[in-house]
Amino acid sequence: MQMSTSLRKKRAAEAAKAAGVDALLVTHLPDVRYLSGFTGSSAALILTNGAPRRAVLFTDGRYTAQARAEAAGTRVVIAPKPLQAACEWIVKHRVKRCGFEAAQTTVASLSAMRKAVAGASKPKSSKPKFVAVKPLVARLREIKDAEEIQRMRAAAAMGCMLFDRMLDLLQPGMTEMTVAAELEFAARRAGAEGMSFQTIVASGIRSSMPHGHASSAKLPHRGFVTLDFGVVLEGYCSDMTRTVHLGLATAPERQAYDAVLEAQEAGVAAVRAGVSAGDVDEAARSVLRRARLDKWFTHSTGHGVGLEIHEAPRLAAKATQLLEAGMVVTIEPGIYMPGKFGLRIEDTLVVTRTGCEILTPSTKAWIEL
Amino acid sequence: MQMSTSLRKKRAAEAAKAAGVDALLVTHLPDVRYLSGFTGSSAALILTNGAPRRAVLFTDGRYTAQARAEAAGTRVVIAPKPLQAACEWIVKHRVKRCGFEAAQTTVASLSAMRKAVAGASKPKSSKPKFVAVKPLVARLREIKDAEEIQRMRAAAAMGCMLFDRMLDLLQPGMTEMTVAAELEFAARRAGAEGMSFQTIVASGIRSSMPHGHASSAKLPHRGFVTLDFGVVLEGYCSDMTRTVHLGLATAPERQAYDAVLEAQEAGVAAVRAGVSAGDVDEAARSVLRRARLDKWFTHSTGHGVGLEIHEAPRLAAKATQLLEAGMVVTIEPGIYMPGKFGLRIEDTLVVTRTGCEILTPSTKAWIEL
Repeated sequence: MQMSTSLRKKRAAEAAKAAGVDALLVTHLPDVRYLSGFTGSSAALILTNGAPRRAVLFTDGRYTAQARAEAAGTRVVIAPKPLQAACEWIVKHRVKRCGFEAAQTTVASLSAMRKAVAGASKPKSSKPKFVAVKPLVARLREIKDAEEIQRMRAAAAMGCMLFDRMLDLLQPGMTEMTVAAELEFAARRAGAEGMSFQTIVASGIRSSMPHGHASSAKLPHRGFVTLDFGVVLEGYCSDMTRTVHLGLATAPERQAYDAVLEAQEAGVAAVRAGVSAGDVDEAARSVLRRARLDKWFTHSTGHGVGLEIHEAPRLAAKATQLLEAGMVVTIEPGIYMPGKFGLRIEDTLVVTRTGCEILTPSTKAWIEL
Repeated sequence: MQMSTSLRKKRAAEAAKAAGVDALLVTHLPDVRYLSGFTGSSAALILTNGAPRRAVLFTDGRYTAQARAEAAGTRVVIAPKPLQAACEWIVKHRVKRCGFEAAQTTVASLSAMRKAVAGASKPKSSKPKFVAVKPLVARLREIKDAEEIQRMRAAAAMGCMLFDRMLDLLQPGMTEMTVAAELEFAARRAGAEGMSFQTIVASGIRSSMPHGHASSAKLPHRGFVTLDFGVVLEGYCSDMTRTVHLGLATAPERQAYDAVLEAQEAGVAAVRAGVSAGDVDEAARSVLRRARLDKWFTHSTGHGVGLEIHEAPRLAAKATQLLEAGMVVTIEPGIYMPGKFGLRIEDTLVVTRTGCEILTPSTKAWIEL
């Protein structure tokens, strides 16, 4: 980890400098992990952009050994209240303008930070000022480096393997919960650290709920089953959705599937560096519009994935952000007809200069079990 | 759910009134669930305390059917941007002072809220003012009602059942990951919606890490295995830790176990309504101090549990908050000797007027497998 985190810390410090601050206080745990390698649940990280550049990780006594092992290359300070200790450090080291990310800092934390620096400052000295900066680390995290892409490939490949296993297992009468249990058990046995979100198994009429978590409902003799799940492997999330049909489908079901598949493939085909996120959304959405199904496509086309299951960028209608090589995003159109049925098909892919690399190559062809 | 949420909404509105605001904007998802029953991942809830009192839930199109079903008794508004729609609502309904919880609102959300009301207000009219209030809903959630305690009993009982199963299964040479896989599979099969946190299986020298997530390490022929895990059942988290020993223990291991068990039981014995959280912490900590092991007890004694795995109150050294009947808290002292071994014992219990009800009655006696 050390080599990549040292480059990441350097880039974050440069971004902080460009944002006009002397230091950056990072408290969002996935950001701390990204920059330092530390995976504990209590942490504050300071990056300064002076000469010499410094990176100091503050955590509490539970993590003494773990922090030193994981955050090799970053100085570690153990303190009962890491955030307060970080604030005292910036006073002591005469940081004037300390950046923080507004999207990752609560109003209460900010006032605690202000109180801590006021408490640590001498009466006549100037207190450090906290300055809200635009998402810097989130922005760096959008573009995955080679090590990250390697991990995401491995996580996504595990997802595909799990889907194949589920195909052998799905049958009418088993509960959605049992499907989730088997899938998660297989994931753990294959070495997953956990699931990247609550597994969705939505069958029959429940497939019309975009986020139908596995319930005690039984898989029907005839109807869709949507599986949307992800594993965590070395910290990185996978994300994929496939929808299969149990028993004979009706014509509207089959037509809906074909339309969603065409939309999904159109979304994938639109991806390449330089294209706007909104154009990718439109590529998928317009297929459903032509099929007069777009009113049932009630969410955006995709999102970034990485250390977190939902990251920047968002692939939503009219989003102007341009895709860049190294971004890892999902393409996941779906339709949901309340009281009838629903379905979604989702891949995760790496944006490249000329197109994309699909990390989840499991078949998307119609499957009737 | 409807009856309990209607009382909860009433109490929250009263608390908002006492805090001097006309309405409360709730965005923390577990708080939204607590007050309305809605479990979706995108929501803003407004409670007003005027006459008539109103409660309006804003969510997006993915959750149309789900919100109406789950949040029966609360008006539901579907909008692509729920937070913005909520801000427009408070302008339209002439709320003057709108409370928000500083600990649950990011600096970025607050500025989006301010921008939204500015955009929706007419040039000459007065804009609603956002006022940071102390944790109101978190405070209500500290005291569990009968329905919540019933759910937590069921979740904790499932935890105990799982621990018993694990006793039949643990043996040297199996990986920590396999232990976690089996435990989580059994949880799912028993109907758990998921795990309440990443399962901790820390064996041998890894037991000296308070938060050693299950790794590829193999259970040793001689050494401790700490299992710390929880299930989610009807939204409520269980939390328990037991440490068992594989093979013959050394004298220091056995002494350490006895000391931690004595500390844990002293902590439990100190619990009753009216006692301060700090006194409960001290009851456990002082046992380890007498055994000269307190320097290895590097965390606080316990925390509240409920819809979230970590809630108020905190049972930490010198904490002055008084325990109240209906709080559900953990008592979990542990010691961690780097490079040697560690262990922890944890129960979840309901505070009562005269003591407590232990929700996790699995044996804490020394177990050598």
